[in-house]
Formats: sequence, C-alpha cells, structure tokens
Amino acid sequence: MKKVVILGGTGSIGSSSLSIIRQFPEQFCLLGISAHTNSEGLAGIAGEFNPPFVALANESRVSVFRERLPSYQGEILVGEAGLCELASSGDADIVIAGIVGVAGLRPVEAALRAGRRVLLANKESLVCAGEQLTTIAKTCGGTLLPIDSEHSAIFQLLEGRTEGEIASITLTASGGPFWQKDRQFLAGVTPEQAVRHPRWSMGAKISIDSATLVNKALELIEAAWFFNLTEDRIGIVIHPESIIHSLVSFQDGTQFAQLSVPDMCGPIGYAMAYPGHRLRGVMKPLRLEEIGALTFAPIDNERFPAPALARDCLRSGGNASAVFNIVNEGAVALFTKGLLRFVDIVPLIERAVARFFEPSAPSVEEIIYLTRRLLAWVEKEGPRHSGVSLS
Amino acid sequence: MKKVVILGGTGSIGSSSLSIIRQFPEQFCLLGISAHTNSEGLAGIAGEFNPPFVALANESRVSVFRERLPSYQGEILVGEAGLCELASSGDADIVIAGIVGVAGLRPVEAALRAGRRVLLANKESLVCAGEQLTTIAKTCGGTLLPIDSEHSAIFQLLEGRTEGEIASITLTASGGPFWQKDRQFLAGVTPEQAVRHPRWSMGAKISIDSATLVNKALELIEAAWFFNLTEDRIGIVIHPESIIHSLVSFQDGTQFAQLSVPDMCGPIGYAMAYPGHRLRGVMKPLRLEEIGALTFAPIDNERFPAPALARDCLRSGGNASAVFNIVNEGAVALFTKGLLRFVDIVPLIERAVARFFEPSAPSVEEIIYLTRRLLAWVEKEGPRHSGVSLS
Repeated sequence: MKKVVILGGTGSIGSSSLSIIRQFPEQFCLLGISAHTNSEGLAGIAGEFNPPFVALANESRVSVFRERLPSYQGEILVGEAGLCELASSGDADIVIAGIVGVAGLRPVEAALRAGRRVLLANKESLVCAGEQLTTIAKTCGGTLLPIDSEHSAIFQLLEGRTEGEIASITLTASGGPFWQKDRQFLAGVTPEQAVRHPRWSMGAKISIDSATLVNKALELIEAAWFFNLTEDRIGIVIHPESIIHSLVSFQDGTQFAQLSVPDMCGPIGYAMAYPGHRLRGVMKPLRLEEIGALTFAPIDNERFPAPALARDCLRSGGNASAVFNIVNEGAVALFTKGLLRFVDIVPLIERAVARFFEPSAPSVEEIIYLTRRLLAWVEKEGPRHSGVSLS
Repeated sequence: MKKVVILGGTGSIGSSSLSIIRQFPEQFCLLGISAHTNSEGLAGIAGEFNPPFVALANESRVSVFRERLPSYQGEILVGEAGLCELASSGDADIVIAGIVGVAGLRPVEAALRAGRRVLLANKESLVCAGEQLTTIAKTCGGTLLPIDSEHSAIFQLLEGRTEGEIASITLTASGGPFWQKDRQFLAGVTPEQAVRHPRWSMGAKISIDSATLVNKALELIEAAWFFNLTEDRIGIVIHPESIIHSLVSFQDGTQFAQLSVPDMCGPIGYAMAYPGHRLRGVMKPLRLEEIGALTFAPIDNERFPAPALARDCLRSGGNASAVFNIVNEGAVALFTKGLLRFVDIVPLIERAVARFFEPSAPSVEEIIYLTRRLLAWVEKEGPRHSGVSLS
C-alpha cells in the first residue's frame, strides 16, 4: 500500500490522482492533500478519503474548511510552511506536485530534500530551478518522475533502453486552439477563447499556455532537465489529435511512439504504480481504426515564437529559463484581466529575458526574490507594452 | 565481426542484407550465400564479396555460375542438401532465411538444429511448422529473430518489457493495392496489377500475398509463434502509409508504436546487430511533419477473408496453418499463370483447410509430403474451382 500526498489537490491533477486512489484502494491511500484557497473542495475530499493531514496555503480559509467538515480529526497545516511540511514530513511514498506555477517550487524542494519520490506536474519548478532540484534530488536520494503526458511518454519509452541507442526525442503538441489562426485573429484572442483547449480538460493557466505554445516551450525546458538532453536533441511536432504523446528516435532511424486516449489518469497512474507494473484499465483502450487519422505539422515560429525562445533560454543557461517562466506567469495573469493582448505575452517574456539575464543559475531563494521583482516589473511594463490602458 | 550466411541471397531480403554488410564492413562479413536459379546474380554477389561458400538450389545452374565467375575459389554447394549444409555447417553467427515459401523449411530447420541464430524472413516455414521449429530451437540452442517489419516492430517494442504489462499486439497492414476496391474490381484483378505494391518493393509472391491480405494472415500465424500469443491477443489494422510497423498494447490502455520510413534495412539491420546496439543511419530519419497524416481503417472480412481464416486455423491447430500456407503457394502460382481468379485464392484455401485438416501437428517430413500432395490437388482443383479453362 503506497501512501500518497497530493499538493494542489483540488485542481485537475489532483482530481485524476484521487480517481486513481478511488479505483485502486488496495494499492494506494491518501496520506495528505493541500489546496490553495478552495477549502470547500478540500473539505469534500477530506470527507471522502479522511487523510491524516490536510494543508491550506491560504490561512484565512481554514475556518471555512472547519465549518464544512466539523468532523475532521486530522491535522490541518497552513501557509507555505504547511505545504512544505506536508511535502516532506511523515512517511509518504509518493508526493504528487500538482500546484500550478512557481508557487510549487518550495514544496517540491522540501519533498526532494526529504528524499521523497515526487511526481511532477508542476513543470514550472523544474523550469525555474532545474539545476538545483536535480542536484538536491541526487544528494538527498529524492526522485523526480514526470506526469506531464509528453514526459511520461518519453519516460516510458526510454525505460529499458540504453543511452547509446537514442538519437533524439520529439514532443508532440496539440497546438492549442489557435495553431492554424493568422496573426490578425491572434491579435484579438480573448481569455475566454484561450482557456477552451480542444483536447485536454485542464486549468486556466495551462490552457492559456497551450494556446501560446508557452506550455510546449516550458515542456522543452522540462524535458532537457528530465532526460539530460541538449535542446538540439529535442524536437517538437504539432499533432492536433493528442493521441501520440511523444516519440523517441533511435540511431538507426527507428522511432517509438507512446499513444493513448487523452486522459491524465494514464501518465499519473504509470508514475504512481512505478516501477514494475501498470494499473489495469486505468484508461479506455485506444482504437486507431475508429480514430481514423493522426496528423502532424511543423510549428510556425513566426506566429508562435515561444518554443524558439525557450531554446535560446536553454542555450543561455543562467536564470534565462526562470525569467521566461516567471514573466509568463505574470503575463498570463495580466492577459486574463484584459490588460495584455494574447500576442504580446511572448514578446514581453523575450524583453524580460534580454533585460534580466544573469549567467549564473539562481538558488531557490534567488528565484523567490526574482519572482517578486519580475512580477512587479510585469505589472508595470505589461500594460504599457501592450498599449492596453488600465480601465 | 559477425559471419553472415544468406539463404535466398538474390531476392529483396538478400539485397537489403548485402547492402548492410556493404555499409558496415567492420561489423559483418559474408560467409556464404545461396540462390535458387539466379546464378548470374549469385556470381555478381560472389565477385563482390568473395564468400567462402555459395550454394545453388538448382544444380543445373552451377555451370553458368562457373562461366560467369571463373575466378571463384570458394566451395559451391548444390541442391536442397547444399542449402542445408550452408545453413548449418561452419561457424556462421547469423543465418538470414530469405527463401520464399515452404522451400525454405528444411534449411531453416537445419540452421536451428545446428544452434544458429536465424533471422527469419521466410515466414512460411514458421507458419507450416511453428511447433516443430520453436521446439527444435529450444532443444538445440538455436534462436529465431524476426525480420518482417511488423514482427521486428513488436520484437523491438517488447524488448525490456515484462509479460504482465502486455495486453495485446496489433499488426499494421498496408492493405496492399486493392483494400478500397469493390468485389467487382477484385474479380478482374490481373497478376500485373497484383504485384505492384504501393509501399514496399518486394518479390512477386509476397506482393500478391499482400494484395489478398494472405500475407497479413500468415503474419498473424507467425506472430502467434514468435510471441507465444493466442489469436485473440493479436489485432490487425489497415494503415496504408506503412509508417507505423506495428503496436503493443499495455494493460493500462497505453500503446507503443514502432515507426520508420518503409525500408527493410531497418528490421534486418536491427536483427543483424542484435543485441545491444543499432546500426547508425541504416535508414533515413522519419519526419512526421513532412508525412502529414497517418491513417487507419478496419479490415473488411467480407472482401478480404484471409485473416479471419488464419484465426480459424490458429484455433484449430494441427495441420491447418500448414495447409493454409501450402495451398496459398499453389494458388498464387496458378493465379500468376492466369489459371485462377484473384478472388478465388482464399476460397480455395478455405476448401483445402476443411478437406485436409488433421488435428495433430505434422512433422517436418510430413509437411514436405503434404506439400507435394496439396500442390497436386491445387493444380487439379484450382482451375476447376475458378471456372477458368486451361488454355
């Protein structure tokens, strides 16, 4: 029986993880779960699974949780310190990091320092602090397993292969809702349009990141850290059906692809059960003859410059990837409020990378400081950059 | 340096194998090679590679060989006995079985009895004598490696996986030139039309087998023996682009696919270099964004009854698969001569399976005897069955 901690338990990653615990109660139990502010959602989960620990990042929501679930007898942890305690203390076998954005960085760090197995949906922490987190994992005996569908695909395909066989990997990208739209259309994209992802049901931030292809850019950086590859060995191909989740290319010209219906229970379940077995029937079987066609197209770097910018960041090293990620978080928040145009998100990131670049890799503390500084800069520069007046 | 013997060296499998030896002379050398009647082709190869042994199945062609290559100093083996000697004596590391049809059975048996590693393109021998050959291999320390693109794909995908992970496998089928044609068109198909395969450049017999989907039916039986699976765990899907060569389905709903440009140097090279490494650049890299679309469709069992009949044969066991294969060989020969209609090939096989079925698996000797008997029956019954008059 594996004891599971879920960070960011009320989001879509949390929901898939809980559904797996529900389906395989003889293999998994919930040790602890956190939410940011959604204390109602957390109370519902705690009522069903009765975990010994819950955590609320936002302290002011604790009273709502108590009102909703007065019978709860477990421990309630609060604030970022509470998340870190949940991530690192006790005897969790698995910590699922489903918090969105750089907010997940400290809890992920804490879990790795405690030697935990961390299932990482929070790609932003690896993008910002790839060098630190991989080093901490190595030093403290922690492990990082991917649960992004693309990285899980690569991880599964590489399992049992020798390094010398591999030529490169290729991440597939759904392309989001707009990959075939022209510049004029993109200039007018609204937040409501951008959050409607055609294939995956996900949170708002990651859906917008998919629409700008920033998500794929972050995944490129994530893949470089997960699989220890330089950017020239990581390709990206648009694949709107999201059936092939990624591919590995071998030295002889052969490729392996990993396929399934688009369902996050697949990659999460694989990582939860890892190593040695797969959870029977965790996804519906795929029937290619019913799907009919899988299509592929190259990325247009003119209309979607994020992946090429991420390649620059990887080549530059230092804090470039951290700046990329943090400024994107601020820019997405501004876009959501109508204070930045869709097409200005990536150019704003590009300006920030040029302006704030430092050649040495920042520590986790420095990333937290950089986050405050850059988000303030985005608040100020974003609307000006965009030419959108504050209403 | 691996010493290579090629049986059926002047056909398309031989040609791909020789091109690999040519590209990787530091890894492979040609120890011996055989031809059926093409002594000119054999002389050309012997002139280039100067192998210590050559073999000619047809004894009457030896003089032509000597005339063409008077300088040849190696040993010339003749007849079926010569092929068997080439397959089993000496110190070959690899025997590539590229002979077409049941004619390849005895040499394959001889190689396995001598404990050789046999790279099997000659699927007919495994279809006819799966039980015997796998038993001989086990007893005598021989190994069978697949070089059909589909079986190589499955073999590669299964490498390093545990049996418990696997739910089923799916063979892809190009569908041949006629899979979208109606019954009326099929009734009038000529041998000239049937040998023009849309994706693979292959010999005449296998091209016709592809057009009837008998090739896929044989591959189904071959896969059952290679991977020790019952027929209900082997799917088939039409995939006209021949880019995905086959797929493996796991218990959790995940699938892995093996992809490449259609080039037999891929599967042959993989088996020649096996285990442990891949031959760098043996095929052109695959670029999905240039290919654009991969399509899939179910098989229409009404117009193409061969795979369903093969499933019946596998379930029946005994000599059913041997009868299927032998009668097909005879039927294809009749079709090529214009003495049997395209659409009557599989119904003739079906009649033969019903009529000649024996529940016990035949020995190799019995298969040789059965071959003579069935080919005589086909000669007589085929034209009658078809309603085509002998001209």
